[in-house]
Amino acid sequence: MMIIVMKKDATLKQIGGVIKKIEELGLKPHMSEGAEKTIIGVVGDKRKFSEETFAILSGVETTVPILKPFKLASREFKPEKTIVRFNGTEIGGDRIAVIAGPCAIETYDQVLQAAETAKKAGAAILRGGAFKPRTSPYSFQGLGEEGLKILKSVGEKVGLSVVTEVMTPELADLVADYSDILQIGARNMQNFSLLEKVGKMSKPVLLKRGLMSTVEELLMSAEYIMANGNRNVILCERGIRTFEKYTRNTLDLSSVPVIQHMSHLPVIVDPSHATGERYLISPVSLGAVASGADGLMVEIHPDPDSALCDGYQSLPLPEFETMMVKLKHVAESVGRSI
Amino acid sequence: MMIIVMKKDATLKQIGGVIKKIEELGLKPHMSEGAEKTIIGVVGDKRKFSEETFAILSGVETTVPILKPFKLASREFKPEKTIVRFNGTEIGGDRIAVIAGPCAIETYDQVLQAAETAKKAGAAILRGGAFKPRTSPYSFQGLGEEGLKILKSVGEKVGLSVVTEVMTPELADLVADYSDILQIGARNMQNFSLLEKVGKMSKPVLLKRGLMSTVEELLMSAEYIMANGNRNVILCERGIRTFEKYTRNTLDLSSVPVIQHMSHLPVIVDPSHATGERYLISPVSLGAVASGADGLMVEIHPDPDSALCDGYQSLPLPEFETMMVKLKHVAESVGRSI
Amino acid sequence: MMIIVMKKDATLKQIGGVIKKIEELGLKPHMSEGAEKTIIGVVGDKRKFSEETFAILSGVETTVPILKPFKLASREFKPEKTIVRFNGTEIGGDRIAVIAGPCAIETYDQVLQAAETAKKAGAAILRGGAFKPRTSPYSFQGLGEEGLKILKSVGEKVGLSVVTEVMTPELADLVADYSDILQIGARNMQNFSLLEKVGKMSKPVLLKRGLMSTVEELLMSAEYIMANGNRNVILCERGIRTFEKYTRNTLDLSSVPVIQHMSHLPVIVDPSHATGERYLISPVSLGAVASGADGLMVEIHPDPDSALCDGYQSLPLPEFETMMVKLKHVAESVGRSI
Amino acid sequence: MMIIVMKKDATLKQIGGVIKKIEELGLKPHMSEGAEKTIIGVVGDKRKFSEETFAILSGVETTVPILKPFKLASREFKPEKTIVRFNGTEIGGDRIAVIAGPCAIETYDQVLQAAETAKKAGAAILRGGAFKPRTSPYSFQGLGEEGLKILKSVGEKVGLSVVTEVMTPELADLVADYSDILQIGARNMQNFSLLEKVGKMSKPVLLKRGLMSTVEELLMSAEYIMANGNRNVILCERGIRTFEKYTRNTLDLSSVPVIQHMSHLPVIVDPSHATGERYLISPVSLGAVASGADGLMVEIHPDPDSALCDGYQSLPLPEFETMMVKLKHVAESVGRSI
Repeated sequence: MMIIVMKKDATLKQIGGVIKKIEELGLKPHMSEGAEKTIIGVVGDKRKFSEETFAILSGVETTVPILKPFKLASREFKPEKTIVRFNGTEIGGDRIAVIAGPCAIETYDQVLQAAETAKKAGAAILRGGAFKPRTSPYSFQGLGEEGLKILKSVGEKVGLSVVTEVMTPELADLVADYSDILQIGARNMQNFSLLEKVGKMSKPVLLKRGLMSTVEELLMSAEYIMANGNRNVILCERGIRTFEKYTRNTLDLSSVPVIQHMSHLPVIVDPSHATGERYLISPVSLGAVASGADGLMVEIHPDPDSALCDGYQSLPLPEFETMMVKLKHVAESVGRSI
Repeated sequence: MMIIVMKKDATLKQIGGVIKKIEELGLKPHMSEGAEKTIIGVVGDKRKFSEETFAILSGVETTVPILKPFKLASREFKPEKTIVRFNGTEIGGDRIAVIAGPCAIETYDQVLQAAETAKKAGAAILRGGAFKPRTSPYSFQGLGEEGLKILKSVGEKVGLSVVTEVMTPELADLVADYSDILQIGARNMQNFSLLEKVGKMSKPVLLKRGLMSTVEELLMSAEYIMANGNRNVILCERGIRTFEKYTRNTLDLSSVPVIQHMSHLPVIVDPSHATGERYLISPVSLGAVASGADGLMVEIHPDPDSALCDGYQSLPLPEFETMMVKLKHVAESVGRSI
Repeated sequence: MMIIVMKKDATLKQIGGVIKKIEELGLKPHMSEGAEKTIIGVVGDKRKFSEETFAILSGVETTVPILKPFKLASREFKPEKTIVRFNGTEIGGDRIAVIAGPCAIETYDQVLQAAETAKKAGAAILRGGAFKPRTSPYSFQGLGEEGLKILKSVGEKVGLSVVTEVMTPELADLVADYSDILQIGARNMQNFSLLEKVGKMSKPVLLKRGLMSTVEELLMSAEYIMANGNRNVILCERGIRTFEKYTRNTLDLSSVPVIQHMSHLPVIVDPSHATGERYLISPVSLGAVASGADGLMVEIHPDPDSALCDGYQSLPLPEFETMMVKLKHVAESVGRSI
Repeated sequence: MMIIVMKKDATLKQIGGVIKKIEELGLKPHMSEGAEKTIIGVVGDKRKFSEETFAILSGVETTVPILKPFKLASREFKPEKTIVRFNGTEIGGDRIAVIAGPCAIETYDQVLQAAETAKKAGAAILRGGAFKPRTSPYSFQGLGEEGLKILKSVGEKVGLSVVTEVMTPELADLVADYSDILQIGARNMQNFSLLEKVGKMSKPVLLKRGLMSTVEELLMSAEYIMANGNRNVILCERGIRTFEKYTRNTLDLSSVPVIQHMSHLPVIVDPSHATGERYLISPVSLGAVASGADGLMVEIHPDPDSALCDGYQSLPLPEFETMMVKLKHVAESVGRSI
């Protein structure tokens, strides 16, 4: 892939000329309009062009090859940070986006209680699993479409956007009927046909890092979605698998500033899956926000000890409220808000 | 889940009586007919039955709860080793099943050359990728159905069974039209909708261990397939992700005897992906067979340095022939053949 | 090990009676005098005593067995957090202890420049390596005693306490002549003869987590030091080895609240070794303090690009000053100071 | 470092001339006399010499820089495999060297029973721990010198060489009085002062890989020993730490052929520590020998269930005898003997 940087005062006609040339060669242009300059990415068979092919065109300032394996997701292609906007909310801006809700949707009342607390405490988005990927075929697999209905209905009642997981390409359109954001779970981070499917859809995608995946692989999976047309990708660090036994996974906090260095995409942290322990959610969340995370995704439950799924890593509602108060102070100390 | 062990001399009528009782309670029976005794697994809502429910039935010797999270895949449920049979070949018996072929199907001639060498050297099955899961959206993604046609055609010409990867549930029936075995790749080990799909099909499934999955999780994924009806599952150790840098992954050799201890399913080793280095394939293959592996899955190529995929971990054909000679000696030293 | 909790109003005579009994049985008492109650730990051959042996003694409220493998380091034995005090400084109190300085001591001027910046920016302690553990026998191994002299001299001139690494038991007394704190490096975390040696000394010990060690093993190594008499142990998270490649190690941020939950000992974070990248030191440090770390250990250098050791993970002095300003805001947001 | 390859017919005088030149420049020569040619390694300050410095000397065929971080341990420096010889035994030759014995020396009778079985079954060397590195300060730490006396006495009585662990530099000379081989444990692989100490001694060193060390780091630690003068280093793969839970560690079988590719030093495998499970010792041992290991180090015990240390990974004596019979067949199948 190559980047074509247009001159500051390049005209629409000049930009059009470059795009025409790209398409004539059977290549694909990707636009990135920044505050200052327009950048055009060229993707396709490398043998069909060289830097000179485009450097001589009118309005072109310079051309740069992108050496990283991810292109559209890279800071080189789009220097400005991406802010993903949907349904009156945004992720990647000054406000820390807090996503909260139960692991699995169980009943309308359960979700409603969690949602009302979340809203009051300052969360922006409601989460809840309707289709659950479970290690065992004998575990509770979620309420399915009934769960989606509950989620959407509660979100509208309380005034929160909603996010839920898409497990297969066939279910993607159904989920999109109910959810503002399409979540790709950690186990599906390299389910390439699923990535292609959501890449062709218009709703934002929340892509969770695989528990066995490097940051580079996470960015490559984002690239799959973006190369199919969907630029609204939010990345989520949720812990990786290591030898440490006191936590369910090991939160790789450094991945937050690493991703922000390499990519323009927003990145949030899931302290529930990263730690697997209720008592660790609050301190780890404070750390994530201080390190620059654009948001959090926290499991909360009105009665965690009776939860059908992952209760040991869900915060009781009063503890969530306490955490949110602390979070506001930390967010402000790094120039952000909740 | 619970196991009902029938008496040695239990009649068909007694067995039928037990099955009827299971179904009356809204539970599901799973049969395991051993050389000596019939064992019946009971799966379903635990609140609907206790050990006594069945212990009093006629012909029942004893009842045993299975504590491991995997049930149908466990040695408790089926003490005898499973031999998977298909198209005149078998995996899990005395003969070491060697699967060989190129990483990706590129041309008819490429596959034919590899297949003829494989056949002559003693391999039983031909492999080749038609749909390739690739980390980058810009990498070669395989020839698709054209590749399947080449594979089947070469297999028939040379007299080898064939195996190739299924990447999505929608493609499973197409792949089954061409392939004797359905391969689930490492990245899809926990793609549960894909596991359910192949679980409902009749062809044997080759399930590769995820590169950061525990053996227990591998057996749980086999359980997904088996719980859906397909008992012909072959497991494949292909290396796990660790900190070591001289190899692409780290072969977990112990997983072979561990799996054989825990489960009745056959287990093979993929030395190409496990090591990522041509010079390591032969020594590691010899070690795998000495440790008790039921087979190997080796990438070979007529011209590895020009391969479109993973040439650095593919054996040139003459080196494969040399390895097979050594392998015969080692197989015989542990009472097996090739 | 067993804990004997004395009554709130237990007299010195009663406490003395319990100690006498312990020693009569050939066991060893460990005292923990809290604000409210005195707790006495009993270590020794389990066959020599039972809970009843002590429960009946005068002044004893109750006896409790400690089930965790670490005893003196556990919160059960000492519920109050330990504050390590030395040379007018402390670690574990409200003030975040920032330790800064070069990886290796190279010249007087280099250390002086770093120390003056550190002091002015709010650091409490000066670090610098005189004896360096190096993977290669051909790498720079440190200035030895000459380096110790520079460190002590600069520390006194600038008004900072100093810390430096002890690599072997034989060098421990020499290092203690110059240093306020004895640092045990990550590779020596399970060098048990070294742990025993510093356990018999009176200066505080800074114990770094091995890059291959669990938190439990870290606490067991602290136990070695404490069981030999030295209660002033400061723990340091410095990253563990994982598969991720964009960072040198993976900072296990959760270990900070985990340690504070399990143990009363103070815990600090080393962002330089944890990340191995200059641009990650500041965000990761902010995160560590927000998560509750009691301090930081940061490599800084007047000219990192010419450093003899680890320059790529050392902050230039102006960047350190900038970070310290941010750190003050974050520390205050969680109720602490710098 | 640089290698000077002498001509096939170089005279002793010419070789002497090269050595003289090296020493005149304040550098250090390391000799490697192969069957065909003499190779001289030059170690020291790179600024003092260039390839030309030596290329022009009489008798010199060519000069080659060694780019790997390990030099004396590399195949470039010494193409022929090293055979370590001591006390009538050897490691690295055609015969597989089996080292067997208890984890910890407990009593004379315990060691004697193990030794007699080991000898009869074909083992060459007796192992047993006298100084034990233990994670907990409260665990059995070994019999110390009394244990060394038992080991030596039993070895002489039964006719086996002996090996035992050296934990600190101060104990090295004492251990060398009793043991034919000096073992460096996994936790001490990067205890550099210990490596230097045994590097200056004359007895062979058995260096175990750290449980989270790369193969490159293992070879660097061997380099420490060799750079101090001791060329008789035997490497030992004993499993690395990963996320897999069914085994205590994960045997990295590939490390055996990797080491043999990179280095001339012999390499053995410790199946007891690698697996931590009795039932895995035999299959893993067979695999190691088939893959090319030069030996095995197996924990055996007359009564494993009462062992003071690691009984769950020790083979009962009759099972060891059974394994040795199988091992002979496998060894022969790869052209070796026991």
